[in-house]
Amino acid sequence: MMSAMVKLNHHYQKLQPNYLFTEVEKKTETLLSREPGAKLLHLGVGDISMPLPPAVVEELVQASLEMGDPKKFRGYGPSQGYLFLREKVAKHDYENLSVSPDEIFISDGANTDLANLQEIFAPDVRVALPDPAYPVYLDTTIMAGRTRLPLKTGGYGGVVYLPCLEENGFQPLPPPTHADLIYLCSPHNPTGVAMTRPLLEQWVDYAKRHRSILILDAAYEAYINDPEIPHSIYEIEGAKEVAIEVKSFSKNAGFTGLRCSYTVIPHQLRVADTGSIFSLNTLWKRRQDAKTNGVSYPVQRAAAAVYTEAGQAQVKGLVTGYLERAKVLGDGLRALRFAVFGGVNAPYLWMGVPERFNSWSFFDYLLEKAHLVTLPGSGFGKTGEGYMRLTSFGTKEAIAQALERLKAL
Amino acid sequence: MMSAMVKLNHHYQKLQPNYLFTEVEKKTETLLSREPGAKLLHLGVGDISMPLPPAVVEELVQASLEMGDPKKFRGYGPSQGYLFLREKVAKHDYENLSVSPDEIFISDGANTDLANLQEIFAPDVRVALPDPAYPVYLDTTIMAGRTRLPLKTGGYGGVVYLPCLEENGFQPLPPPTHADLIYLCSPHNPTGVAMTRPLLEQWVDYAKRHRSILILDAAYEAYINDPEIPHSIYEIEGAKEVAIEVKSFSKNAGFTGLRCSYTVIPHQLRVADTGSIFSLNTLWKRRQDAKTNGVSYPVQRAAAAVYTEAGQAQVKGLVTGYLERAKVLGDGLRALRFAVFGGVNAPYLWMGVPERFNSWSFFDYLLEKAHLVTLPGSGFGKTGEGYMRLTSFGTKEAIAQALERLKAL
Repeated sequence: MMSAMVKLNHHYQKLQPNYLFTEVEKKTETLLSREPGAKLLHLGVGDISMPLPPAVVEELVQASLEMGDPKKFRGYGPSQGYLFLREKVAKHDYENLSVSPDEIFISDGANTDLANLQEIFAPDVRVALPDPAYPVYLDTTIMAGRTRLPLKTGGYGGVVYLPCLEENGFQPLPPPTHADLIYLCSPHNPTGVAMTRPLLEQWVDYAKRHRSILILDAAYEAYINDPEIPHSIYEIEGAKEVAIEVKSFSKNAGFTGLRCSYTVIPHQLRVADTGSIFSLNTLWKRRQDAKTNGVSYPVQRAAAAVYTEAGQAQVKGLVTGYLERAKVLGDGLRALRFAVFGGVNAPYLWMGVPERFNSWSFFDYLLEKAHLVTLPGSGFGKTGEGYMRLTSFGTKEAIAQALERLKAL
Repeated sequence: MMSAMVKLNHHYQKLQPNYLFTEVEKKTETLLSREPGAKLLHLGVGDISMPLPPAVVEELVQASLEMGDPKKFRGYGPSQGYLFLREKVAKHDYENLSVSPDEIFISDGANTDLANLQEIFAPDVRVALPDPAYPVYLDTTIMAGRTRLPLKTGGYGGVVYLPCLEENGFQPLPPPTHADLIYLCSPHNPTGVAMTRPLLEQWVDYAKRHRSILILDAAYEAYINDPEIPHSIYEIEGAKEVAIEVKSFSKNAGFTGLRCSYTVIPHQLRVADTGSIFSLNTLWKRRQDAKTNGVSYPVQRAAAAVYTEAGQAQVKGLVTGYLERAKVLGDGLRALRFAVFGGVNAPYLWMGVPERFNSWSFFDYLLEKAHLVTLPGSGFGKTGEGYMRLTSFGTKEAIAQALERLKAL
């Protein structure tokens, strides 16, 4: 019997394998096989290196014990997350911004929501994203069929790229063209540069004129030092009518292995379509109700502990620790005459590559001559060429040693 | 400036609000406001009522403590799940079926994967699903644009419904028409009936002839008592070429609040499309790599504890406990001359409604006359009309009392 055959999502064929981390790993292994005694120092890792703060662990353990108690255990929780956590987020992270708990959705990671949020929009919406950027924005846009094929000149047809360049202070500017759905990230991964208030105002204005939606990835918000930099896009007037904000417990409280984040979708975020007005909050709630049973109860309890007095002090200690390392690394690199950006309001530094190198050849050079493992900026988009992403998640000792080795080059 | 406006996923407008649980809640509240002293007994709840087994709690606590230890904490884990858990699943749950750890994907819930698996297929694949069924299969099919509008006769255009009727022993038979992607559930929610080996063989045969993919939801596998009933679809010859299997720790080990499950995608599951052969395992891995950072580390450690000797004994105790209650409830109802199905290989019972009632009017009758809260079968699809879903997740005392009240009616 001949019959039709199940067809696949053809857009996956447009994905280009992201060789960044596998290539870094391969090159590192090759070096180690050649020089088995090499003491490698890792300067590019994006994962945290300090454990969960004690207040968080205590609550995690407490809630875990309760899960074995016939009187206290919890079964299915709300897909939107427990109210006790959403109330804490609303009160603490949006103190004067009037965000209500029912505008907050708890999730198992910023990554998850940044990817899945596209589902509530039409297949043919035009996506804009910074270049360089966290690869998830582009990969999930490709998977959803919202790009054309990759172009010979780099990048994908149908995507609006927002170049983050030294000329524009690494600030992604609103483009002259139209985009429907715009990913922004502040403080930015990989450049480590935070978006200024005037730029966020420009974006809110752009979104209103173009009737677009902004998705702000604010996973590194806790690292903002500069009092002029907004901690939330909702500090900008009118932003609630155009912006979704995604925040995470990963990089402030060390939840990369525990998994918890949240997404804010204000009730004012309404879209007129086919003659009716739709609330994005309601659409997302419907999506979450159908597709998830929410985040692990002990993990939500642990996240709530971030907002206790002890939790706040401990998280501040972690963030301050990483920022101090970023300062040491940045100052050290500048003293060695490298061009370095970021690292003030973020755990990431964006280092210019010396003239005779490109991202990958400089990676090779640092690996071979100084046994330093870094991350080539070109892995984050074509505008990242000529840069390296360094992070302050390594230990103090590793950073000090790395600087010594660079000096000796 | 006039400009285009962001467009939404129009398919969400085809969704019909699932009134089942809200309606049950509303009616229950109305009764309580009229009779504040009423001692309600809940017979319809699908959530577990016994806490996590001690071996699981112990490991959960241990892993939680390690997350605060500078030498032992874990950051980002593999999107596919930790190997230590995938190895245990492969070895224990697929002992003689040669499933390898890299064919297993750990997830935060069967619900999540059952919904998301659709993403790797083309938008126009034809979906088949049992009627009645767990509402997630249909809702996520609608959201993905794989249905037409709802029909006046009930159901949605474009969907192949597989009726589970008393005439066919509540066994969803392969249809005469073509379907690309077929949801099956065994033991079945809501009927509580498990699929027989000959029927699974028929489905594997159908899928091979039609070059379709089966997605078997086996969340209740642990409840299978009958030695003739397969515990995995891979017991059927050739199934690895056509079937994905989804299992969960929710209903055996009580993880509904902790969130952990897994999905098996065999390497043999390959689809020819546009002249090439694609591995669904590879496509799903790419999807997971882009869209998730995996499941909480302590939760995966807790799931691994299910496979220890103590864990196995305790889980068996939980399942046996729920099955004993199912037997008491089923026998009691049959003694009262109700038609009752399921409850032998599942914690669910499918009770026929007396002739002068339909699902909702019998719900009302039981609520008013006996203060019993049940679940109308019509909420699971039009073929569920005339039935009620009862569960054995309530306490022994509640089940005994409920039977007494029914007897007194």
